[in-house]
Amino acid sequence: MSGKSLRIGVAGLGTVGAGLLKLIDERPLFAPAGREVVVTGVSARSRKRPRPFDISNLPWFDDPAALAASPDNDLFVELIGGSDGPAKVAVETALKAGKPVVTANKALIAEHGAELAALAEANDVPLLFEAAVMGGTPAVKMLREAMVGDEVEQVAGILNGTCNYILTEMEATGRSFADVLADAQRLGYAEADPTMDVGGFDAAHKITILAALAFGCAPTYAAAEIEGVEAIEPIDIRMAKDLGYRIKLVASAVKSAEGVAVSVHPALAPLAHPLAQAGGPLNALFIEGRRIGRIFIQGAGAGAGPTAAAVAADIADVMTAARRPVFQVPAAQLKPFAAVDAKRQVGRAYVRLLVRDQPGVLAGVTETLAEGGISIDSFLQRPVEDAGGVPIVLTTHAAPEETLLAALRRMQKLKALIQPPRMIRIAHI
Amino acid sequence: MSGKSLRIGVAGLGTVGAGLLKLIDERPLFAPAGREVVVTGVSARSRKRPRPFDISNLPWFDDPAALAASPDNDLFVELIGGSDGPAKVAVETALKAGKPVVTANKALIAEHGAELAALAEANDVPLLFEAAVMGGTPAVKMLREAMVGDEVEQVAGILNGTCNYILTEMEATGRSFADVLADAQRLGYAEADPTMDVGGFDAAHKITILAALAFGCAPTYAAAEIEGVEAIEPIDIRMAKDLGYRIKLVASAVKSAEGVAVSVHPALAPLAHPLAQAGGPLNALFIEGRRIGRIFIQGAGAGAGPTAAAVAADIADVMTAARRPVFQVPAAQLKPFAAVDAKRQVGRAYVRLLVRDQPGVLAGVTETLAEGGISIDSFLQRPVEDAGGVPIVLTTHAAPEETLLAALRRMQKLKALIQPPRMIRIAHI
Repeated sequence: MSGKSLRIGVAGLGTVGAGLLKLIDERPLFAPAGREVVVTGVSARSRKRPRPFDISNLPWFDDPAALAASPDNDLFVELIGGSDGPAKVAVETALKAGKPVVTANKALIAEHGAELAALAEANDVPLLFEAAVMGGTPAVKMLREAMVGDEVEQVAGILNGTCNYILTEMEATGRSFADVLADAQRLGYAEADPTMDVGGFDAAHKITILAALAFGCAPTYAAAEIEGVEAIEPIDIRMAKDLGYRIKLVASAVKSAEGVAVSVHPALAPLAHPLAQAGGPLNALFIEGRRIGRIFIQGAGAGAGPTAAAVAADIADVMTAARRPVFQVPAAQLKPFAAVDAKRQVGRAYVRLLVRDQPGVLAGVTETLAEGGISIDSFLQRPVEDAGGVPIVLTTHAAPEETLLAALRRMQKLKALIQPPRMIRIAHI
Repeated sequence: MSGKSLRIGVAGLGTVGAGLLKLIDERPLFAPAGREVVVTGVSARSRKRPRPFDISNLPWFDDPAALAASPDNDLFVELIGGSDGPAKVAVETALKAGKPVVTANKALIAEHGAELAALAEANDVPLLFEAAVMGGTPAVKMLREAMVGDEVEQVAGILNGTCNYILTEMEATGRSFADVLADAQRLGYAEADPTMDVGGFDAAHKITILAALAFGCAPTYAAAEIEGVEAIEPIDIRMAKDLGYRIKLVASAVKSAEGVAVSVHPALAPLAHPLAQAGGPLNALFIEGRRIGRIFIQGAGAGAGPTAAAVAADIADVMTAARRPVFQVPAAQLKPFAAVDAKRQVGRAYVRLLVRDQPGVLAGVTETLAEGGISIDSFLQRPVEDAGGVPIVLTTHAAPEETLLAALRRMQKLKALIQPPRMIRIAHI
């Protein structure tokens, strides 16, 4: 199992790339059976940019695709990012050259995974992407390998550390989303352009990949229902807590007879639930299998150390010479999800209303819901200072989402409503 | 990646064996790329015993070693159990015949793992044992494969579902260990002879295996410090909770400059800690890596479904033709743990005393501790009905265990003590 050293080319030298070079420098024998890893080429946008790791002695490639094609390396590591452009070209080049690829690129796999899996399998080389989801926490390996003896029914979790940090801070300080985001950006916990994170798109890329692994479908990013955390208000966090819940950005993929529903949206999780207790930048995930039951996994979802270690574990996997389909079934059999229409889904919900303090308001609200066949599970009316009205929150019993939304649209016609109702789903976890 | 069917022989048809036959019957194509699994032989102690699965059409072997040697199967599954005897002979026979082995036998791997790994590697076949630890929760795969890019510093968790169930019930009902155990036996949650479980030996087998995988050492069961839950009293569960802790049977393996400390003992975990929150028969585990940080994993630790699914995942792994050392490093390099003397370890502790209600008692207790250099972190004295004295509980700051035990021995000379002090460690988690 030992042998000559494995020569790798690394494209992309941001946080994760620099972390990987550092890890290999400290511990080139990390792989099983002591086969040494040697970096034989690097590529990045700028050669001169200051980095925590000295790259002046490493062969430099201006073009990542040239590095991917170079006969001087046996394995290509893609850490450039982005679903298209140079990352995709370089990965395709490496696979076509019969070279194993390890990538941390969630957008690339979520948007072009089936096509790249076909290319990898046609060239009989692995395409591995543990670092694309949950950093060093091995969600990909668990679904790809440990659940293969079972049938997965549901995967649900917290897959974006930035959103989780923001929601945790909002709860702890009572401050607004915009305030906490600005702080997070100053501290480097959020990007200058935070859209991918706070808009739910990063989590959607990740759950799309996990769904493909769990259910043996082609990753189908376009089918994901996506809602971010931008509209979450401190009052909702507070009211939810009074009702025994915490608001989390929950990414989930559920298989049913009708197909697969993949979604990312803010949702209320019961306070005692492990997902509710994963605070700060932590990531957490449930996997529910028919035989295995529920497995819960939690860890750091990002950062140079954890993500580089996940890339290294994939490099070690390549050395085992294992051959398995990229997504549970051979690429030729991969079909896109039969997406379930989110509106036809049945679930419980939290609804917050701001109403004028006048007689008959409650009757109007409850009648509108009753007419729509929506039954109320709990109800909370509480004076809140400076709210500009009386906030009412209620939770519903399970109802088709379409029915609830129709009832809320009718409710908007009530004159006593000061603003449109705010609906947040209660997580089905 | 597809190909002709994989023929397996299954020795041992208890809960897990029957679960595996059922799984394969329902889903012979569970393995990646649709290579069918076919059972071509079974062996068990009795052919006639009633089973949930009909075996009358399967070729029968009275001797598991004959099944292991048979040319009619390509892979041998050992579910007999026991560290020696027929299980060991059969596994050795299969490995010598150049046949991959999948086993759920924790005692066998914990006690003879290095020797069997050498045999497997000499014959260039995998020896896999995911089902030996935490049932369907893939602790073995995580340590063997996902952490290989990192350096593991500590593994700690709840690895015995029977003990966890008993402790959870004792807390919920206030009943004694003996009472709850008797109930658990009636319900089938505990064996007729519960020693392996409640004595901590089962958890010690499991943590020995995890330590070997985490640190690349030979499994060294004899080096584990083992204490069970038999002596836990309801009063300790109650008092610990008043102090903000829950008593769990914690199995841990910690690496330091001095070596590896492997232990199983009852310990206090802070109520908010994920290990404290894993109740009932759940298993839970922390893995701490230098780069990855803390990964937490939780799931069912036993049962036909989860354990059979873990065996199936191992069978699927065999089909990938992956080659890696059984325990991180080649068997020839495996050395036993350099065991750290438990008494030299430094940690915090909970101490419960039962004293006579008379003046000067507290002074005597605190002076004895102070003389030994043990400093007190918290102190709780509370009247308890029918306690036959005044219970005092205290927690200490970190101190060498040897020093604390010496102080407690001196304390026994105090006339005011009604019974010897009860010490329970506070988990370092």
